[in-house]
Amino acid sequence: MINFKLLSTSLKARSGTLTLNNHVIETPCFMPVGTAATIKAMTTNEVMDFGYNIILVNTFHLMLRPGVETIVNHNGLHNFMKWNGAIITDSGGYQVFSLAKLRKITNEGVYFNSPIDGKKVFLDPKKSIWLQEQFGSDIIMSFDECTPYPADKKTAESSLDLSLLWGKQSKLSITKENSNLFGIIQGSIYDDLRDKSLSGLMEIDFDGYAIGGLSVGETTDERNKVLDNIAHKMPKEKPRYLMGVGTPEDIIEAVIRGIDMFDCVIPTRNARTGFLYTKHGILRIRNARYKDDMMPIDKDCGCYTCRNYSRSYLKHLDNCKEILGLRLNTIHNLYYYHELMSNIRDAIRINEFDNFVKEFYDLRK
Amino acid sequence: MINFKLLSTSLKARSGTLTLNNHVIETPCFMPVGTAATIKAMTTNEVMDFGYNIILVNTFHLMLRPGVETIVNHNGLHNFMKWNGAIITDSGGYQVFSLAKLRKITNEGVYFNSPIDGKKVFLDPKKSIWLQEQFGSDIIMSFDECTPYPADKKTAESSLDLSLLWGKQSKLSITKENSNLFGIIQGSIYDDLRDKSLSGLMEIDFDGYAIGGLSVGETTDERNKVLDNIAHKMPKEKPRYLMGVGTPEDIIEAVIRGIDMFDCVIPTRNARTGFLYTKHGILRIRNARYKDDMMPIDKDCGCYTCRNYSRSYLKHLDNCKEILGLRLNTIHNLYYYHELMSNIRDAIRINEFDNFVKEFYDLRK
Repeated sequence: MINFKLLSTSLKARSGTLTLNNHVIETPCFMPVGTAATIKAMTTNEVMDFGYNIILVNTFHLMLRPGVETIVNHNGLHNFMKWNGAIITDSGGYQVFSLAKLRKITNEGVYFNSPIDGKKVFLDPKKSIWLQEQFGSDIIMSFDECTPYPADKKTAESSLDLSLLWGKQSKLSITKENSNLFGIIQGSIYDDLRDKSLSGLMEIDFDGYAIGGLSVGETTDERNKVLDNIAHKMPKEKPRYLMGVGTPEDIIEAVIRGIDMFDCVIPTRNARTGFLYTKHGILRIRNARYKDDMMPIDKDCGCYTCRNYSRSYLKHLDNCKEILGLRLNTIHNLYYYHELMSNIRDAIRINEFDNFVKEFYDLRK
Repeated sequence: MINFKLLSTSLKARSGTLTLNNHVIETPCFMPVGTAATIKAMTTNEVMDFGYNIILVNTFHLMLRPGVETIVNHNGLHNFMKWNGAIITDSGGYQVFSLAKLRKITNEGVYFNSPIDGKKVFLDPKKSIWLQEQFGSDIIMSFDECTPYPADKKTAESSLDLSLLWGKQSKLSITKENSNLFGIIQGSIYDDLRDKSLSGLMEIDFDGYAIGGLSVGETTDERNKVLDNIAHKMPKEKPRYLMGVGTPEDIIEAVIRGIDMFDCVIPTRNARTGFLYTKHGILRIRNARYKDDMMPIDKDCGCYTCRNYSRSYLKHLDNCKEILGLRLNTIHNLYYYHELMSNIRDAIRINEFDNFVKEFYDLRK
């Protein structure tokens, strides 16, 4: 079951609620990434306490480890990893093309070598959808080819055509009545190809639409141009999801253009290398200047880390490669991202999003 | 301020309360080790929630990183690491001899090269005590030489004599009225040397007495023989601390012989390599048999890990080297150790410790 309700708009920015089975998600939303069925360094309780109720988990990683049987034995991913919120799974397509040694791509699907043990693995729309249904995903993503960047127009178009074919096959592969399936717009940086992709997907008719093939190396200007063209053409009554994005600035720019959903490893991955988000920009805790800095990361932040620990202690933990440092940094960044999204939603709902954006950038000057 | 009150005995085993400044610690107690001012993978809240209210922190590591000035800037270690329980610090002696490249030992102290940056560092009783007072330790350990194993009798005796000299200097170096100082018995595996060490220390008069130079390679039989000889001769009205011990079995055997306090990295370090403690012995989560095992580590365990997660999920996390795996395993082992100590205390208090020991071993057969 899926239901998307648009509550407010502020220029092109939208705020609404996405009801997924028994989960109600406020949008625009950020979905932390739990690649291997864990948000790195966090318990699911902690993630939920920050306020998140939807996360993204990677089909590609889970099909290889621990394998679908183990997850089925646990009656699905929610119970395996003890996450009571909603789960969106990607299709595995992106990782097949970015992480695996490819053997062969045909219209039928992809043969690749497992990066874990080298074994030959096959993935196609039918198998991807089957895996995601077995996992018990609340949102299933179509199997697609993530067009690499840069791609000439001819390559981009044939890649797009393959993704459309696979999108249709993905929809036909759905077996459970309450599965929610999103289609993925490709077309690289070519407006007419993006248009073609979107209208092809809309003919198939999905429960939501995602923009794929961005955050793969293009410039910010190129990305914003793609969003300028395509976002507002995506069905108004359905959620719009920008895959794999991004930094706070990236998210703001996409919300401005009408996007509702985001996922990215940035807050968790950057936490582990000491990049900490604040309203004034990034604080690099490895910087020598923090050795004896008694201040919290951000004195106005209400996260557990900022309520308890000095920059000095965090720098010490990072310096000693202590696991607690990874945890405390991740707590801060995930808290920051949740606050950011919450503030974005509030600003849209009172129709003050343009002021919010101005203030957001002013604080970073 | 220190006050030790013996409440019960069961044969030679003792149970009591150790009051340290504003902390009341029930004995026999286990003290988790927070080498670099963090119990690895845990927040201090979690450690306290398990029921621990005393931890051990390493002077040697902290003097090198972040250095005493940083900790003084935080008004001491409690505030630096946000630990509201008691802190015992070791003297640094053990690590000087085990981790550092020594340059020179004289009666005055030790010159060594920092294992972090190679810089020349000097440590002597005066500096060790000063550091521990600056840290705000609730129990300060005398600076001693941990006699290596094996040691011939002549070497063991001259090492012991040096430790006695340093013990006296440690006491003279105390500057704060409410500092609590423990002396450390050396003497290797030689009963008469252990006796000499103890009586020398008792002449100096400490707030508590520790047995050092064990858990350094000797056999279990040798260790128990040392304990058989010396533990019951240690002052009854003062706490008896066996340094660096140990496994659940080691702790049981030492409590039998009258020891009150323990510290060891075993529960935390072994957690990180997948050795999980249960009443039936060790469960090695890396074992292939747990791949699809839906049971918790121990179905009777009340820890967060056992209440929520299957062995299968824990094995998956370990397999993927996920930080959450390190956390969940550490939670389980620290919970186990706390339960073990709590059960030991209860058994002593109802004078049923011999039955407890029998049952402890029966379950492992």
